[in-house]
Amino acid sequence: MIARLVAKLPLSPRTILGPGDDCAILAPSPAPTLVTIDSMVEGIHFNLNWGTPEQLGARSLTVNLSDIAAMGGKPAACVINLAIRPGLTMPFFDRLYSGLRRTARESSVDVVGGNVTAASQLAITIALLGDSPARPLRRDAARVGDEIFVTGTVGDAAAGWRILAGKLRARGPARRHLLSRYLVPRARIDAGRRLATLRPAPAAIDISDGLLQDLGHILERSRVGAEIDPESIPTSKAYNELMGSDLSLALGGGEDYELLFCARPGHSERRLSRLLGIPVRRIGRIVRGRGIRLKGGAMPGIAGWDQLRSGN
Amino acid sequence: MIARLVAKLPLSPRTILGPGDDCAILAPSPAPTLVTIDSMVEGIHFNLNWGTPEQLGARSLTVNLSDIAAMGGKPAACVINLAIRPGLTMPFFDRLYSGLRRTARESSVDVVGGNVTAASQLAITIALLGDSPARPLRRDAARVGDEIFVTGTVGDAAAGWRILAGKLRARGPARRHLLSRYLVPRARIDAGRRLATLRPAPAAIDISDGLLQDLGHILERSRVGAEIDPESIPTSKAYNELMGSDLSLALGGGEDYELLFCARPGHSERRLSRLLGIPVRRIGRIVRGRGIRLKGGAMPGIAGWDQLRSGN
Repeated sequence: MIARLVAKLPLSPRTILGPGDDCAILAPSPAPTLVTIDSMVEGIHFNLNWGTPEQLGARSLTVNLSDIAAMGGKPAACVINLAIRPGLTMPFFDRLYSGLRRTARESSVDVVGGNVTAASQLAITIALLGDSPARPLRRDAARVGDEIFVTGTVGDAAAGWRILAGKLRARGPARRHLLSRYLVPRARIDAGRRLATLRPAPAAIDISDGLLQDLGHILERSRVGAEIDPESIPTSKAYNELMGSDLSLALGGGEDYELLFCARPGHSERRLSRLLGIPVRRIGRIVRGRGIRLKGGAMPGIAGWDQLRSGN
Repeated sequence: MIARLVAKLPLSPRTILGPGDDCAILAPSPAPTLVTIDSMVEGIHFNLNWGTPEQLGARSLTVNLSDIAAMGGKPAACVINLAIRPGLTMPFFDRLYSGLRRTARESSVDVVGGNVTAASQLAITIALLGDSPARPLRRDAARVGDEIFVTGTVGDAAAGWRILAGKLRARGPARRHLLSRYLVPRARIDAGRRLATLRPAPAAIDISDGLLQDLGHILERSRVGAEIDPESIPTSKAYNELMGSDLSLALGGGEDYELLFCARPGHSERRLSRLLGIPVRRIGRIVRGRGIRLKGGAMPGIAGWDQLRSGN
């Protein structure tokens, strides 16, 4: 079935052997290989009523692309494990793969193989390979004094999810923007690759779990702390319309797939925005110690705030 | 959690960056890269009452190792996606990973990363990377006149599964042997690597779906047919004790993870057995046409026989 679904996919010269054998074969690359795996499970990461099958297919690959982006890498090839449950039809899977194929094509990824298994829950698990840049963007590279930046805007996807789940209400362009940020996320591949040209290479992570939590992963691996200025957190017009000054989703919500990175002082927002091809905002700095201190004190309604603050 | 579970694993110099970042980083290899993905789903591929968590962990990796073996490759690194359901404890996962780690160590595989997600069914999905030999063992390489060989014995795992499922009864050493073939399969990595030194490179596949069905995959990709002599199918003493002359499980059962390959005529069983370090039996030959012809006609009780015969 995988073979049929991916048959229409053109493969790059990098792929020596595509789907249909025990393994795929990829030509050697002079660059080190990046490897990541991620899974989307029905009822946990998606709900079939919320978007189209094409959007689901695209999003399944995008969450992996975002991991490559967060290392500054270039995505190359993926294998797909599809767990299918009763009640889903072949036209559904054709549409799912159509979305996946489109995202693969747009990001120059070869779908080189896969596996289909029966299950009680629909799940799409993708392992993605990519080429590492000369200096990959590692979580353990943050140093005291670094400035912390974030691309784009945060909180939109979390707001979109809440609208779909019936926990928030929105209308018109704001609603469309927020739903789209959740259902059709974009991985910041180009921005990540350009970021990896900075020296020394910044620490970076993609915002999948939420800004504070993902920043926490960098702090833990780098054994440092951070100060964040909530007033500098970039939010969209749609987010502001819906949430006002409530930053809980911007700081605690996930799935925006923006990049958060820590660079040595001296880079202006303007220059970084021009380098990455996307608006970049300075939101704080790396300090000695552990955990995250929010300028102005604790903010109500931010998930995980107490836990993250412990250690300060 | 993955980070904690795989923390005890030593990594080879090949792994530049292991678990804990957005991606793992592997040093470049001069050989082309083999990639495969496979999944074990509770209730479909395993039952927690049938074996130990260690055996389940080991088997989850072995089914992937077997795909690398079937290409003649050398396994190198894997990433693991663990879908966990309510009701399973941390000691269970410790034991699962202990079995997985042991198999990884024995086969020189680095566990370089992973992902954990909630789900309603336990599932272990592993993507495995390896180094391709100079001439990989492809399914599309069978030619008319090739002789068909199989390593070890077939049907044992299918018999073991039926004993566990209460569909067959066995006692003593025969029972132990058959259960062990199902619960603790071995991937024929060394045999596959040695097989890849033959010229021209044989067509090969691992027997995961059943001998006739897997042979069918080679025939389809190579656009040829096959004649099989049922009397030459290698079965174990335990299998013979239980099944007598009934070859249905040897021909139609799967999960033995033996290798089936097609080589140009002229290789004796004895020399191939010595080369591969495991008994090898000649079971038939590649012929013009499509499908599989069994010497002596159709055999009762062989799953898929009619379907496979179509075309002859």
